[in-house]
Amino acid sequence: MSYTVIKIGGKLIEDAATLDRFCDRMTKMPLPLVVVHGGGKMAGELCRRLHIPEQIIGGRRVTDEQTLEVAVMTYAGWVNKKLVSALQKRGINACGLSGCDMRVVTARKRITAAVDWGYVGDIESVNTAVLKMMFREGIVPVLSPITFGIDGVVLNTNADSVAAAVAEALSKDGVTDLIYCFDKKGVLADVADELSVIPRMNRKDYESCKKNGIFQAGMLPKLENAFESVSNGVRTVRLVHPDDLDDPLAGTLISEN
Amino acid sequence: MSYTVIKIGGKLIEDAATLDRFCDRMTKMPLPLVVVHGGGKMAGELCRRLHIPEQIIGGRRVTDEQTLEVAVMTYAGWVNKKLVSALQKRGINACGLSGCDMRVVTARKRITAAVDWGYVGDIESVNTAVLKMMFREGIVPVLSPITFGIDGVVLNTNADSVAAAVAEALSKDGVTDLIYCFDKKGVLADVADELSVIPRMNRKDYESCKKNGIFQAGMLPKLENAFESVSNGVRTVRLVHPDDLDDPLAGTLISEN
Repeated sequence: MSYTVIKIGGKLIEDAATLDRFCDRMTKMPLPLVVVHGGGKMAGELCRRLHIPEQIIGGRRVTDEQTLEVAVMTYAGWVNKKLVSALQKRGINACGLSGCDMRVVTARKRITAAVDWGYVGDIESVNTAVLKMMFREGIVPVLSPITFGIDGVVLNTNADSVAAAVAEALSKDGVTDLIYCFDKKGVLADVADELSVIPRMNRKDYESCKKNGIFQAGMLPKLENAFESVSNGVRTVRLVHPDDLDDPLAGTLISEN
Repeated sequence: MSYTVIKIGGKLIEDAATLDRFCDRMTKMPLPLVVVHGGGKMAGELCRRLHIPEQIIGGRRVTDEQTLEVAVMTYAGWVNKKLVSALQKRGINACGLSGCDMRVVTARKRITAAVDWGYVGDIESVNTAVLKMMFREGIVPVLSPITFGIDGVVLNTNADSVAAAVAEALSKDGVTDLIYCFDKKGVLADVADELSVIPRMNRKDYESCKKNGIFQAGMLPKLENAFESVSNGVRTVRLVHPDDLDDPLAGTLISEN
């Protein structure tokens, strides 16, 4: 069996036209598929409208109870159901899930010595049996980045990490490819030139590009995560614009060798 | 196969202590089970905090786009995941679903000649195949009252109607009992006396009680719905307090004869 995990940013699917184009492309993707979506700007906007103060420590957001409530409402509620219904409209049998549902993604509350990050979870396990039950019925699981803490709490988790954990777990059972949809055409050799997409990158290419300072800010953590996934069993990681989702030659394809 | 569908009001499970007691009782219920929950006060409160004006025509709420967003966020998001994680904590393998997920409950936008009710759905179909797939795996589906309009829209639907439609659909395949948890000990013969619970009621009893003006306001539509369900194939409908969920002798048991 061969699996594909697709991560789409919440910011992208909050735009109705981008959501439509993404879902159109999705109809051309072979099953079995898992979709993981992010939260986007909606949670932050809702916090502002509700006058919930933002707490940032060292560049990282603290998720207190009110912020968690907003995250669950927007990610597992509106964004998830909006995406599921757009896929269902096109005949894709999508099923929205949070990590709590059937304990599909469990996590541990992040505890560090200095800071209480609140309801933030680091992933512990992915229940691939549940995903495979759905695959057998032709169902496409659509995961929001909300996870289940073993003591019964709901936790907020980074969507890229959920996608990586799901792909790595599935790779134990079959060939698995991971696709990150983002707002660029791929990894660019020249940040000012949208046409300078690097089509393929192995670890050696990556290290030499990094040494030469090629990558724009914000790209490094994405690439580090991608190489971690391929070293954990994922066959390839593709970074691609959602409009090119179904084109296997588009974007940047990352693999170990 | 024998099925039980349990409806719990959102207002009840918004209270942490009631939610805990309800979930404790749930562990004593035999599978297969479906839970349907309502929305509670949270959606109204969130609308007020967001300054979304309430539109009521002839006593009925109009669901415009902003109100729908709030309904989906609170019902399919926070209330659903809160309930699912409280059940999972107790070892019940709950899976939260909206009607959009696997098209488990589809609806048609309510159109009347005089009024546009907005994003309000009247139920069209229940996908029992999906529910039975979950039953086979020991999974307890937990449904929020958000449904899927065939043209791809998300719709807000009455939770009692969702519970009734699910029970009626399952009754085509096996004996099905429907339980409505509410804030009374059962149907009361004397509204001022919480101990005056009517233990059993068939249609004849109901008609004669109704003639004698026994029932308190708000009880009649609940009873009308209950008798509609039993005439549509559901074996019994029980009206009971959530604290008595697992006591088969508690509350009011409604059947055709």
